[in-house]
Amino acid sequence: MKSRVAVIGAGPSGMAQLRAFKSAADKGADIPDIVCFEKQSDWGGLWNYTWRTGLDEHGDPVHGSMYRYLWSNGPKECLEFADYTFEEHFGRPIGSYPPRAVLWDYIKGRVEKSNVRQWVRFNSPVRMVTFSDATKKFTVTAHDRSNDVTYSEEFDNVVVASGHFSVPNVPYFEGFSSFNGRILHSHDFRDAMEFRDKDILIIGRSYSAEDIGSQCYKYGARSITSSYRSKPMGFKWPDNWQEVPLLQKVVGKTAHFKDGSTRDVDAIILCTGYLHSFPFLTEDLKLKTANRMWPDGLFEGVVWEKNPQLSYIGMQDQFYTFNMFDAQAWFARDVIMGRLKLPSAEAMAEHGAKWRAREETLEDAEQMIWFQGDYTRELMEQTDYPGFDVEAVNQTFMEWEHHKAQDIMSFRDHAYRSLMTGTMAPLHHTPWLQAMDDSMESYLEVKGVAAE
Amino acid sequence: MKSRVAVIGAGPSGMAQLRAFKSAADKGADIPDIVCFEKQSDWGGLWNYTWRTGLDEHGDPVHGSMYRYLWSNGPKECLEFADYTFEEHFGRPIGSYPPRAVLWDYIKGRVEKSNVRQWVRFNSPVRMVTFSDATKKFTVTAHDRSNDVTYSEEFDNVVVASGHFSVPNVPYFEGFSSFNGRILHSHDFRDAMEFRDKDILIIGRSYSAEDIGSQCYKYGARSITSSYRSKPMGFKWPDNWQEVPLLQKVVGKTAHFKDGSTRDVDAIILCTGYLHSFPFLTEDLKLKTANRMWPDGLFEGVVWEKNPQLSYIGMQDQFYTFNMFDAQAWFARDVIMGRLKLPSAEAMAEHGAKWRAREETLEDAEQMIWFQGDYTRELMEQTDYPGFDVEAVNQTFMEWEHHKAQDIMSFRDHAYRSLMTGTMAPLHHTPWLQAMDDSMESYLEVKGVAAE
Ligand SMILES: Cc1cc2nc3c(=O)[nH]c(=O)nc-3n(C[C@H](O)[C@H](O)[C@H](O)COP(=O)(O)OP(=O)(O)OC[C@H]3O[C@@H](n4cnc5c(N)ncnc54)[C@H](O)[C@@H]3O)c2cc1C
Ligand SMILES: Cc1cc2nc3c(=O)[nH]c(=O)nc-3n(C[C@H](O)[C@H](O)[C@H](O)COP(=O)(O)OP(=O)(O)OC[C@H]3O[C@@H](n4cnc5c(N)ncnc54)[C@H](O)[C@@H]3O)c2cc1C
Ligand SMILES: NC(=O)c1ccc[n+]([C@@H]2O[C@H](COP(=O)([O-])OP(=O)(O)OC[C@H]3O[C@@H](n4cnc5c(N)ncnc54)[C@H](OP(=O)(O)O)[C@@H]3O)[C@@H](O)[C@H]2O)c1
Ligand SMILES: NC(=O)c1ccc[n+]([C@@H]2O[C@H](COP(=O)([O-])OP(=O)(O)OC[C@H]3O[C@@H](n4cnc5c(N)ncnc54)[C@H](OP(=O)(O)O)[C@@H]3O)[C@@H](O)[C@H]2O)c1
Repeated sequence: MKSRVAVIGAGPSGMAQLRAFKSAADKGADIPDIVCFEKQSDWGGLWNYTWRTGLDEHGDPVHGSMYRYLWSNGPKECLEFADYTFEEHFGRPIGSYPPRAVLWDYIKGRVEKSNVRQWVRFNSPVRMVTFSDATKKFTVTAHDRSNDVTYSEEFDNVVVASGHFSVPNVPYFEGFSSFNGRILHSHDFRDAMEFRDKDILIIGRSYSAEDIGSQCYKYGARSITSSYRSKPMGFKWPDNWQEVPLLQKVVGKTAHFKDGSTRDVDAIILCTGYLHSFPFLTEDLKLKTANRMWPDGLFEGVVWEKNPQLSYIGMQDQFYTFNMFDAQAWFARDVIMGRLKLPSAEAMAEHGAKWRAREETLEDAEQMIWFQGDYTRELMEQTDYPGFDVEAVNQTFMEWEHHKAQDIMSFRDHAYRSLMTGTMAPLHHTPWLQAMDDSMESYLEVKGVAAE
Repeated sequence: MKSRVAVIGAGPSGMAQLRAFKSAADKGADIPDIVCFEKQSDWGGLWNYTWRTGLDEHGDPVHGSMYRYLWSNGPKECLEFADYTFEEHFGRPIGSYPPRAVLWDYIKGRVEKSNVRQWVRFNSPVRMVTFSDATKKFTVTAHDRSNDVTYSEEFDNVVVASGHFSVPNVPYFEGFSSFNGRILHSHDFRDAMEFRDKDILIIGRSYSAEDIGSQCYKYGARSITSSYRSKPMGFKWPDNWQEVPLLQKVVGKTAHFKDGSTRDVDAIILCTGYLHSFPFLTEDLKLKTANRMWPDGLFEGVVWEKNPQLSYIGMQDQFYTFNMFDAQAWFARDVIMGRLKLPSAEAMAEHGAKWRAREETLEDAEQMIWFQGDYTRELMEQTDYPGFDVEAVNQTFMEWEHHKAQDIMSFRDHAYRSLMTGTMAPLHHTPWLQAMDDSMESYLEVKGVAAE
């Protein structure tokens, strides 16, 4: 009998895993049976936008954390697939910071072409995974929401690709239970228009804080106050945006900060990050980690050292995204198919400890990018993934950082060269601050703008 | 070895189950070992208010559906415990429509006195329950959130008391994914002050629609539009509250209704009810039902006919609440302890079919109340639960209905006689529409008002 592999999640990471197996099959390999369980009704993970918040139509936690008007926050040239370029997908070069719908279309294009959708069971949240030491098999219990039937099946391998930016980390601040305005986490932020003419308070200093604040500014919030725990973001903000130290308490509608200042606000948006959460895994299988560059316990950031029949894709904090997931998925595939032999448990632990030691020295985003580039390269060197020029991608990231420092409200008006095709991206037809329509149609419209 | 009983949930239903066992022990019976798994950090179920919405601090769905300023929507005289009166708890008679905090205090009082808190494992969501035909035991897998450890234990009996007003039923209407305001379900409604000076649209015609609309009116919403599917609520609403037929679509901020009328709104509150949801139960154990007076498959509305080692408490739609849960819990206890012998499977099914047939003839709230009264009495007659005058409680419900029809904004300004102690409740010191403080302190203040 063929061995069986369960992939949990059909977001970019799970889709990379499907593509990896398909690519081996296309080259003539005898691949295992693949079953991908996806709790949403379509694939694409976070990129599959939903207006819903809280619980979904079936009563499961809403996975989506993306919002209307979200555009890529890094250059698309840094996440391009090595085996499927933007030019191949769209038939021509496009701008460097596409809105959500455009990137969703791109990642779907590759797997549609590969004809792997038949492997995916949609509307199927996984409820429980157990491993039997006796049989050396996993039992996966899933809930078929379309027919409302819960059932179990056995697998030889499991790949967890369920993401880690969906379960909000929601800290409590004094006075929250009697605040007379709205409190929400970035996970539940959907339409910046709701905050037009409002005074909003943002807690956090990372990508969600930066981008949700910018969205609210763009769509007409009256004022933005962003409150940091460790240090300010330090960009050159517009006049109605102030950075203040950490929130201490709220009284009625008044927020009090660590420096003694106060501000009346209508809404508090907690951009306080996410939790790695695997309620469907038993203790022996469960990764427990903060959001960081090098979670412990995963050989090459992928294989669960305590039980190498289990792998995780995409569990790192991310500068590299789609192409790193590819590198991981090809690696996991080759481990599962026995093409790559794992070293001893001690050697795996030792190898991980080295990466972790380097990770602990990282001081800023730039160093993290070089770290993650090196990691991705190490993976790619071990499989037949086409690979790409990591150094050049790193350099593009450096340009991006530079453009953000120059002007946080216009960094998306730049364009970069594809490291896969060598083509320079055209400038988008409308500056980001004026582009109110986030549809794919609007983004792909050609209005005759020359490249930078 | 003693047999072991798992109770899932420490809301009013689970607390009733604990009290039922304790009361048998107090009378000298040899009771099983009881373990109650409660996912929240305290007991009281829905009555344990939280400001959180969506997912909780650990990443599990927030259970709470209650909001600030919530007062009982029925007379407390209709839910009074037969074995622990309001007068015993508060030391004196109190008003008939207490705010949430007062009722929470009351239900906690009884179980604190019984000393059963030691049986409860807090912060412990149950993840999975399976039953083995070979051993005739249940395996309960729980997540100890305090120590972040997932573990399994075996039990002879399981009582599901996890509630069914926590998982929102959220219908989609055309235009929701591009609505430029806020969309929320009543489950996520917290503070009416957020909607001050706003135009709000409510979907639904039941208790949440009625009470959340009234809250928003009380706290200064500019206008309330309530949209019904089947028929209008038909109360005498204030001037700025309109009832309209069902929503058809939203365009931008404009809502379009079935009668062709339109209205611009800032927020849409879906008061569209809840789903029975048991993601932790395997197929053979799972109750599947709409919110109704007589769910199928439960003998006496309690015992899972397909496997009588499993019981459910509180799964009916509710006019009767706390005292009905008591009647059910005493019944479940006596089945588990072998004091009550179950009839054959056929006889159980036949008995249920009779109740169901009567349920299907029910035409209005009044008939449902008499139905649920009869049901509660049938249960009480089979155990040593003290019992009470069901007919008199029904009559109090009838008075309540009458007061609502008279004036929906002042029905809470009435008072009723306790059917347990015979004492008349005092009138509350402040009419509901003027009482802005929902704290227990404020409610219990004595301002020298005479009884009605
Ligand atoms: C607000 C936001 C904006 C972002 N913007 C960018 C960006 O501009 N550029 C960029 O490169 N990256 C961005 N990211 C990073 C993002 O993490 C990756 O782009 C990518 O979506 C990660 O893919 P994934 O497959 O690992 O996880 P996800 O995209 O989260 O997909 C996981 C999938 O698993 C499914 N799943 C979860 N639990 C279960 C279960 N129990 N059973 C079955 N299925 C399950 C989910 O439904 C989902 O489809 C953003 C992230 C966030 C939160
Ligand atoms: C908005 C609202 C207002 C209401 N107002 C009134 C009122 O005024 N008067 C009245 O009599 N009734 C009212 N009710 C009805 C309410 O259903 C009952 O009062 C009562 O709370 C039901 O008790 P329960 O124990 O069955 O369920 P719940 O109160 O819902 O308690 C269930 C418990 O199970 C726990 N739980 C759930 N899943 C798990 C799991 N997997 N593992 C472990 N624990 C779990 C929950 O955390 C919770 O503590 C109201 C209901 C709602 C929604
Ligand atoms: N495409 C886009 O435009 C876009 C938009 C949003 C997000 N994203 C992506 O989404 C992912 C998640 O980003 P994120 O910003 O949500 O999470 P994140 O990067 O993990 O950052 C979490 C932030 O929360 C702060 N925080 C945590 N707990 C706090 C507390 N108790 N009090 C105060 N602050 C607290 C942290 O502060 P300290 O730093 O001080 O510890 C940090 O700033 C990233 O991959 C990002 O790229 C992309
Ligand atoms: N203490 C309080 O003041 C208070 C406040 C709120 C709630 N509660 C309690 O909470 C519980 C739940 O009450 P609830 O009102 O939330 O739920 P509910 O009683 O189940 O009512 C659900 C409502 O949603 C409507 N609905 C469902 N799907 C719809 C759709 N697709 N389109 C339009 N309408 C739809 C139904 O309409 P139809 O009737 O037309 O089918 C019904 O009016 C009750 O026990 C109640 O007593 C108490």
